[in-house]
Amino acid sequence: MYQECIDACLACMDACNMCFDACLKEDDVKMMSECIRLDRECADICALAARSMQSNSPFAKEICRLCAEICETCGQECRKHDMDHCQMCAEACFSCAEACRKMAA
Amino acid sequence: MYQECIDACLACMDACNMCFDACLKEDDVKMMSECIRLDRECADICALAARSMQSNSPFAKEICRLCAEICETCGQECRKHDMDHCQMCAEACFSCAEACRKMAA
Amino acid sequence: MYQECIDACLACMDACNMCFDACLKEDDVKMMSECIRLDRECADICALAARSMQSNSPFAKEICRLCAEICETCGQECRKHDMDHCQMCAEACFSCAEACRKMAA
Amino acid sequence: MYQECIDACLACMDACNMCFDACLKEDDVKMMSECIRLDRECADICALAARSMQSNSPFAKEICRLCAEICETCGQECRKHDMDHCQMCAEACFSCAEACRKMAA
Repeated sequence: MYQECIDACLACMDACNMCFDACLKEDDVKMMSECIRLDRECADICALAARSMQSNSPFAKEICRLCAEICETCGQECRKHDMDHCQMCAEACFSCAEACRKMAA
Repeated sequence: MYQECIDACLACMDACNMCFDACLKEDDVKMMSECIRLDRECADICALAARSMQSNSPFAKEICRLCAEICETCGQECRKHDMDHCQMCAEACFSCAEACRKMAA
Repeated sequence: MYQECIDACLACMDACNMCFDACLKEDDVKMMSECIRLDRECADICALAARSMQSNSPFAKEICRLCAEICETCGQECRKHDMDHCQMCAEACFSCAEACRKMAA
Repeated sequence: MYQECIDACLACMDACNMCFDACLKEDDVKMMSECIRLDRECADICALAARSMQSNSPFAKEICRLCAEICETCGQECRKHDMDHCQMCAEACFSCAEACRKMAA
């Protein structure tokens, strides 16, 4: 179960960091500002969640619970935007949120 | 309120990182193993909490709530050990836990 | 010397994170896109540099050398923009670059 | 090339975090103290290097150059110890050092 959730966190971190970069290169950056902010939040907590599971942190469940919430919020924002990088990011966020909720349960 | 909590997080991160280093140099490292583990956990979440407040994260309160819990656990472990670095770390942890609980309230 | 450089790194991390947030709220976000990107880079390396010095990392000098370079680049970008948050960030970046260069020497 | 190096960094981060946890549970923790310290250093820089490549950081090459050096040092320490977690970590570190040197070239 740990491994599945670690993989989901690393895939989400990847998608969020790529989306962050792509959003900053869009013509209309203003429209992407919330996405840029949340991509960073989400990439950071996914990295921390992966680290906590890999190192058997006594707080892995709590960190995953928070990660699920941040992923959910980031996914909701990303899916408003039609660009591929946002749609792919939304999908990774929702998968990660699901995996983290299972871990935290 | 933000500034007070940011300062407490940065002071706790500092104390935890110094305690991590000092614990690794003790003669009896085994006795410090839980302290070493928790110092890293605590330094990481304090850095994230400070970042979240500095950048007006929509998750600052949730991150501080988790930070309070990790600081509390780290402080409980540190205060079992007589060394100065552990006693100082325990104090920084409890102060930070208190500041984070206020932030999260 | 360590303490002076740690303080400069933490001040720079603070300024970069505040500038990141403020840039995302500007009317013309596009104009700030490079600043947003570099603020994140710079906040991340400053956090790592502070951590490395606090925990007596054997790589503290190398990390500070890289930190100096990233701070310098971020400061050059920030000072192009008239807003207070950018001007304050540029100042913190240049101070941190200077402190890190001394550390790395 | 980016993708290969990102994968190597994430695999190395995983191995270092697992080794960190396993070292803290060994009977003779003192013997592992340098390994514990370097595992943390290495996991942190690998996470930063992965992030920098995923987000197209202008400093990706410099960060990978530093990552290669830290991986090399961590691998040298890990391979002194017979435990599986150390041997696996050493292998991941050397692979990552190699991938990072290619990236930085």
